[in-house]
Amino acid sequence: MKLLEDRIVKDGIVSAGNVLKVDCFLNHQIDVAFINELGKEFYRLFKDAGVNKILTIEASGIGIACLAAQHFNVPVVFAKKSKSKNIAGDVYVSKVTSFTHGTTHDVIVSKKFLNENDRVLILDDFLARGQALLGLIDLVEAAGAKVVGAGIVIEKSWQEGAALIREKGVRLESLARVESMDVETGVKFVKD
Amino acid sequence: MKLLEDRIVKDGIVSAGNVLKVDCFLNHQIDVAFINELGKEFYRLFKDAGVNKILTIEASGIGIACLAAQHFNVPVVFAKKSKSKNIAGDVYVSKVTSFTHGTTHDVIVSKKFLNENDRVLILDDFLARGQALLGLIDLVEAAGAKVVGAGIVIEKSWQEGAALIREKGVRLESLARVESMDVETGVKFVKD
Repeated sequence: MKLLEDRIVKDGIVSAGNVLKVDCFLNHQIDVAFINELGKEFYRLFKDAGVNKILTIEASGIGIACLAAQHFNVPVVFAKKSKSKNIAGDVYVSKVTSFTHGTTHDVIVSKKFLNENDRVLILDDFLARGQALLGLIDLVEAAGAKVVGAGIVIEKSWQEGAALIREKGVRLESLARVESMDVETGVKFVKD
Repeated sequence: MKLLEDRIVKDGIVSAGNVLKVDCFLNHQIDVAFINELGKEFYRLFKDAGVNKILTIEASGIGIACLAAQHFNVPVVFAKKSKSKNIAGDVYVSKVTSFTHGTTHDVIVSKKFLNENDRVLILDDFLARGQALLGLIDLVEAAGAKVVGAGIVIEKSWQEGAALIREKGVRLESLARVESMDVETGVKFVKD
């Protein structure tokens, strides 16, 4: 998606340790009008998939999911990263390792909000090693629901996540696919 | 706001320990069309306040903030609850105790995203003891910016948070004000 690639080139900052900072429009400050355009694009891609629910994971997926969900006219469910008092005991659980944060945590969703009739679109901001997305797919499958696709804002295509998701037979659509990045030379995108 | 009070009566569940569960529409599953109506109401209340930025805190404030921000046509900034590798070193920090989760954590926002020209509307899902909201006000004041108001979806009016916020001279607008609640008899709202 050219609009997104242009924005990454303009405002993204590549830092040491394979970090692409897009915190001025995506995951700390949110440019709501811009993210809404990404939401429209997800709708264009998945509008015929029979989506009745959008699943994401806290925290940075929530804004994207809510803005996209308006176009699908479906609710959002966000998976939570640790058990809190406000979650019922009856939850689906998956373990996710975050390489960004150097932690492993439970990802949970209440059984009330996923069931075997659901056709779920999973949305998230980044796909790198794929652990969060695999955890979300696990939760949907545990509920007997169907993952109709996964929509990602920025894929780091040199890491294994995208291949792992496609091996599971899940349709994956990434709005920007970063082939490589470098502190000196910036971001290079996959050519379609 | 009657629409919200009716929804709380219909779908909210009062549990032991002063917990009002509204996870089927507000903070686990998000009824996006409904929350957008709350966003419109926040706009009606604060449209003349010169808001140029909406601040919230991860995770459950993000959806509300993004949906409301569309009406104000301003960006959202969400404060983060712990330091991660993706946040620049240059951050404002405040300490917040969560009684719900039984923890104290740092709440941080990058200095890039708050400055002395900002007129900030703070939005969040719940106001009870007010600790999260006071932490967010601290962050705005540390930046030399102006808090033009705080918008809350559900206020637990028998707890001290609302009074603490008003004592600081901050305009507070809560869309539903719960006077009391009980596992047996349900939720009672403050009469205006």
